[in-house]
Amino acid sequence: MYEQQMEDFEPTFMSMLEKRWQRNLFVCVGLDPVYDVLPVTVRQNVSPEEAFFAFNCAIIDATHDLVCAYKPNSAFYEALDDAGTRVLSRTVEYIKQTYPDIPVILDAKRADIGNTNRGYVEAAFEGICADAITVHSYLGREALMPFLERKDKGIIVLVKTSNPGSDEFQNLLVGDKREPLYQTIARNVAHTWNMHGNCAIVVGATYPAELKHVRIIVGDMPILIPGIGAQGGDIEATVKAAKDSHGWGMIINSSRGIIFASRGDDFAEAARNATQELHDAINKYR
Amino acid sequence: MYEQQMEDFEPTFMSMLEKRWQRNLFVCVGLDPVYDVLPVTVRQNVSPEEAFFAFNCAIIDATHDLVCAYKPNSAFYEALDDAGTRVLSRTVEYIKQTYPDIPVILDAKRADIGNTNRGYVEAAFEGICADAITVHSYLGREALMPFLERKDKGIIVLVKTSNPGSDEFQNLLVGDKREPLYQTIARNVAHTWNMHGNCAIVVGATYPAELKHVRIIVGDMPILIPGIGAQGGDIEATVKAAKDSHGWGMIINSSRGIIFASRGDDFAEAARNATQELHDAINKYR
Repeated sequence: MYEQQMEDFEPTFMSMLEKRWQRNLFVCVGLDPVYDVLPVTVRQNVSPEEAFFAFNCAIIDATHDLVCAYKPNSAFYEALDDAGTRVLSRTVEYIKQTYPDIPVILDAKRADIGNTNRGYVEAAFEGICADAITVHSYLGREALMPFLERKDKGIIVLVKTSNPGSDEFQNLLVGDKREPLYQTIARNVAHTWNMHGNCAIVVGATYPAELKHVRIIVGDMPILIPGIGAQGGDIEATVKAAKDSHGWGMIINSSRGIIFASRGDDFAEAARNATQELHDAINKYR
Repeated sequence: MYEQQMEDFEPTFMSMLEKRWQRNLFVCVGLDPVYDVLPVTVRQNVSPEEAFFAFNCAIIDATHDLVCAYKPNSAFYEALDDAGTRVLSRTVEYIKQTYPDIPVILDAKRADIGNTNRGYVEAAFEGICADAITVHSYLGREALMPFLERKDKGIIVLVKTSNPGSDEFQNLLVGDKREPLYQTIARNVAHTWNMHGNCAIVVGATYPAELKHVRIIVGDMPILIPGIGAQGGDIEATVKAAKDSHGWGMIINSSRGIIFASRGDDFAEAARNATQELHDAINKYR
């Protein structure tokens, strides 16, 4: 009963995400600002912290009705030291206040032993107020319990990453089944990590064949899919391989392809156009 | 010639570490403060940031002649938001100014795709000024190049972690050799990642048999060994399994066992005593 009430009043990452999918929204915008690449007018007469914040707010205002989630990557903020931590929190706060229906994924790729993960959990969910976080699987379910026991948050586990060298360990054949490691990780996450229905996984759009295998393994679990846009992933192949039994289940991320679609004063409009284009393409092939 | 001059004037992580080993120093103190556990007098009348800084400085002053390195774990600082980022930088700055011969390992367990790792590299080495960083291997060598190309810094790759559930993926049998995954990672790091001689690996003291296998695989590469103390690793078994051909090669970390040896006003003295005891035990069995 108490949990039922919680669900009624406090949306979870998964419930927020599903409401966006019901509106045919599958694009995730990666909020990954790079100071030297920001439009000159954004940088003029303000600190890097204020430039990041103004840039992010403009991108968010221009794209909010077209996205299922925003995904700031921690690395781009950490490069600004303590100002980066502040502007990351301020960006999430802006989204929560202005567009409270949009979930925020903190792409931090964290993972440590159990005791230590409590610090990361506090930073991500109490400090920054993200709705979900990306994590490495290597230490196993036992170590990641401080993340996994957060029923209200999304725990998104790296399975097959989008980079060209991801096969070094991810495609090693393991166990009695002689299946690629990434498939074993996907299976464990789906079958033993997901006791609260709060898990999702990452598979790169640059590997549509692997995406198809993983979709079969994980059922309707959400898949965060980077690698569209600047990294070269194909939208048609991605959508066909990745959609779940409802035609949903996809969080398709583009970062540079959207936020740096133009480096001029029309950057927000260009970002909206790039988001619209990706949105249309996804829904065309879905 | 230029590189030779660099080495003469700018010590690298590896050269700093070796000088500590020449003095029979193998203890690494994990600077992992937890606000609620700090001695009451340290917390009185100051902000959490100042409490962390005063605590760290007292621990460092009490142990500096007994250690080969300090290792702050980023999670404990991130729990304090932007104040945590500041006090982490201030702690490293204090070590660099007061005890410039002691290398600092940032235990951040980072790893993303190549482009994104540049932010982590900047944060760790330019912002925080650490001498080394811990990283996850999962994305492979190609993605970690922004770390690996920093010849002056130590890149310490997770191989076999100390937690009880680390076997979930780390001990899966892989490839034609049907060897545990952690051994393949150790081999790749030793044979293909270490082109600049700047790599090290992590193996937990809680797994002395695995430590022995890994030492054979990696030759004289340094091994960072957590899991002594609070986690229950045995010192004799650890040292016998982990020492390299010179009786060196070990960075043996204790965090809670040293920094929280006493929670009273004698915490710094107790930390020194715990460090001395670990130092003596290591050198007894070496």
